Amino acid sequence: MVRTILVIGAGKSTSYLLDYLLKKSKEENLQIHIGDLKPELIPSEIAKHPNCTVFTLDIFNDEARKKAVEEASIVVSMLPASLHIKVAEDCLLFKKHLITASYISKELKALDGEVKKNGLVFMNEIGLDPGIDHMSAMEIIDRITDAGGKMLLFESFTGGLVAPASDTNLWHYKFTWNPRNVVLAGQGGAAKFIQEGTYKYIPYQKLFRRTEFLDIEGYGTFEAYANRDSLDYREAYGLQDVLTLYRGTIRRVGFSKAWQMFVILGMTDDSYVIENSEGMSFREYVNLFLPYSPTDSVELKLRHYLKIDQDDIMWGKLLELNLFDHTRKIPLKNASPAQMLQYILEESWTLQEDEKDMIVMYHKFGYELNGEKKQIDANMVVIGENRTYTAMSKTVGLPVAMATLQILNGKITTPGVQIPIRKEVYAPILSELKSYGIHFKEYKVPYLGYNPDSVAG
Amino acid sequence: MVRTILVIGAGKSTSYLLDYLLKKSKEENLQIHIGDLKPELIPSEIAKHPNCTVFTLDIFNDEARKKAVEEASIVVSMLPASLHIKVAEDCLLFKKHLITASYISKELKALDGEVKKNGLVFMNEIGLDPGIDHMSAMEIIDRITDAGGKMLLFESFTGGLVAPASDTNLWHYKFTWNPRNVVLAGQGGAAKFIQEGTYKYIPYQKLFRRTEFLDIEGYGTFEAYANRDSLDYREAYGLQDVLTLYRGTIRRVGFSKAWQMFVILGMTDDSYVIENSEGMSFREYVNLFLPYSPTDSVELKLRHYLKIDQDDIMWGKLLELNLFDHTRKIPLKNASPAQMLQYILEESWTLQEDEKDMIVMYHKFGYELNGEKKQIDANMVVIGENRTYTAMSKTVGLPVAMATLQILNGKITTPGVQIPIRKEVYAPILSELKSYGIHFKEYKVPYLGYNPDSVAG
Repeated sequence: MVRTILVIGAGKSTSYLLDYLLKKSKEENLQIHIGDLKPELIPSEIAKHPNCTVFTLDIFNDEARKKAVEEASIVVSMLPASLHIKVAEDCLLFKKHLITASYISKELKALDGEVKKNGLVFMNEIGLDPGIDHMSAMEIIDRITDAGGKMLLFESFTGGLVAPASDTNLWHYKFTWNPRNVVLAGQGGAAKFIQEGTYKYIPYQKLFRRTEFLDIEGYGTFEAYANRDSLDYREAYGLQDVLTLYRGTIRRVGFSKAWQMFVILGMTDDSYVIENSEGMSFREYVNLFLPYSPTDSVELKLRHYLKIDQDDIMWGKLLELNLFDHTRKIPLKNASPAQMLQYILEESWTLQEDEKDMIVMYHKFGYELNGEKKQIDANMVVIGENRTYTAMSKTVGLPVAMATLQILNGKITTPGVQIPIRKEVYAPILSELKSYGIHFKEYKVPYLGYNPDSVAG
Repeated sequence: MVRTILVIGAGKSTSYLLDYLLKKSKEENLQIHIGDLKPELIPSEIAKHPNCTVFTLDIFNDEARKKAVEEASIVVSMLPASLHIKVAEDCLLFKKHLITASYISKELKALDGEVKKNGLVFMNEIGLDPGIDHMSAMEIIDRITDAGGKMLLFESFTGGLVAPASDTNLWHYKFTWNPRNVVLAGQGGAAKFIQEGTYKYIPYQKLFRRTEFLDIEGYGTFEAYANRDSLDYREAYGLQDVLTLYRGTIRRVGFSKAWQMFVILGMTDDSYVIENSEGMSFREYVNLFLPYSPTDSVELKLRHYLKIDQDDIMWGKLLELNLFDHTRKIPLKNASPAQMLQYILEESWTLQEDEKDMIVMYHKFGYELNGEKKQIDANMVVIGENRTYTAMSKTVGLPVAMATLQILNGKITTPGVQIPIRKEVYAPILSELKSYGIHFKEYKVPYLGYNPDSVAG
């Protein structure tokens, strides 16, 4: 019997997802229905596949959406996170399983009782981050606790970066995902985490100055700044008693110190609009944030304001972005400082067609076993093929696709609105991901923790 | 015929207000009704005055509030700004004039049509700031434009400080008003202003590092940081074409640079709660915002983090607040970092009974007259008598009291929801304030502007 997989939303991140499902379509007897607002943008090698049907779907057209869900055997929603709820309600109505790569919203969580009652699996957070981070962390945490170990420390870091071969700028960074999220990163409240049993808080104005370093064999040194939400998965991961819990975002060394210049200038602010933004030059934009002077240049004012020497690499990073160019204009109407900064950065940091991205994930697990303190570090590096087949779309799309097939084939059955932290879910998927080159290297390292002797603090 | 003035809310700022009205009560045939939630806190020399009646009034008791308004000839609301609207609606119902010292809210503004239709005067923003700032600025702006001058520049600064005689700490600051407003000052969006025709924006993280200096004869040098709202009164003041428009808050030199330490550490954040705040020592509080270390002291971590030498006055300012004391505890439950900081500061910065506060206001008016550029600087200094009879309550309360009597006596008649920017209002009040020692000194100075020759920018 043919099974129909409905994929709603076929954006950038779905290349590997769709490839995987179509490759499996013959042996698994699958028909892939792709509903998208602009189906004409779907590559023809996908759209013309014999087991694929592509159609226009406006998610706000209730009738069309319900019809598509009703006809499906299982539903994958790759829509923006806020739109999943409509699809989820339809899935409940027509008794279909649902898979998303997004964080569980309150609205979605509220459906849990009904979902369980109907024996449905609503699997979420099964992309990269969230997704592979959950699965790879739980695989090692379960192994440690199953062996009788007691978790002391968990730190986890992820970054979407540019691959070394395509790393051609002083920032060692290009946009490989949603640039707006990069510009606004860290805003909206202090970062909170625990170090050796002590709560710690970092405000936005210091976030990019409190980085940790991470070394990965063959790839050199990275840095990470704290995420806002380090404590969110404490219970889900069973880490209520852990002394250190920290989650962060990975960049190449030096990025954060330079990014701090934008923070301090106020360029990442998205809370107000510059009325005369349209047609403003990059140079005029910079000058908005500097003191007035009848004689001093924008360059000198900025160097003085941020205390940067002319031969400082920080200065080179600003010049590289053409920030002082009066001929380059920002075409955006009534834009916020953050939107204008994004425009300027996209001019320099857009991945070219043949350039490759890179995903880096790094976990640290500190634990005590038989009275001895130990530590495991685990890291994963995935390099993309080009701008379409990115490491990002691979690491987001493949786990979604694999989970979809597992659920469809009755291998994952525990019902509820959930994330992939149970062995039943993560074990087969992590195993299959290995055959696609997505795997962690583990290292036994001395337990460093943050404070072996609790001296002070 | 006896006229009844209803004063709702008899807090700290009403000592001069009530004194003024009671002193005038005989010659003006006034009866003062004071409605307050806790009338027992009103000083007995006021409560027992023959022309004064004090009664318990819960502003949320509609019946009691309406009755009090109905019986009055005119109403003064000294409630927190958000509560004026209930009183205003009653005033409209019973056709009574209303006076407040607060900013006009949207809800109050919306009553303007009805207020005008009924020939009522709803006078607001007639305290110090807002209040005396409006009146004193408009008096000079009107004089300049009446003489044919064209305004080029307007800068206005106000500060509530400690008087030189009571200035006993390194910060040269004590709380003379609502401490919470001081701790949260500058938050909620970038400061916006115009310098020589160019819009300028300062984010919170740089606000306290972009100060201007101000000299006042006999009082030395002050500094000012930008207010968020410099452009708010552009139209009301008739300054649509002005090249420079800037409003700021005055502190003694060095305050802002030191305050920036709290900003950078994240101590002024009011957006989240520290769950274990109750009983936390000052030292532990500071350590929340510092990196973890098993060996380094909180002192060294902070000095390194903020790059402060041990012999820097900045360090002295922190020590003076007992920030590193592990015996001093914060008794607040589930408090935000800002609330905890306020507690610590109040331990050091509370005005003693015999100490005096000081109000400083400084305006700069740049203009062109007969092809010549000129400038007038005007400043006012008012020193308080003690903790009860403060310069703050004098400069807030007297204009309110004077306006009340002027309106009651039919000297101010133009109806509507308004602020004191018309000559009919400000001229008699500024004149009467002089006899209470509240007056501006004016200086003709060379026009400095920000850019006499428009060289660059």
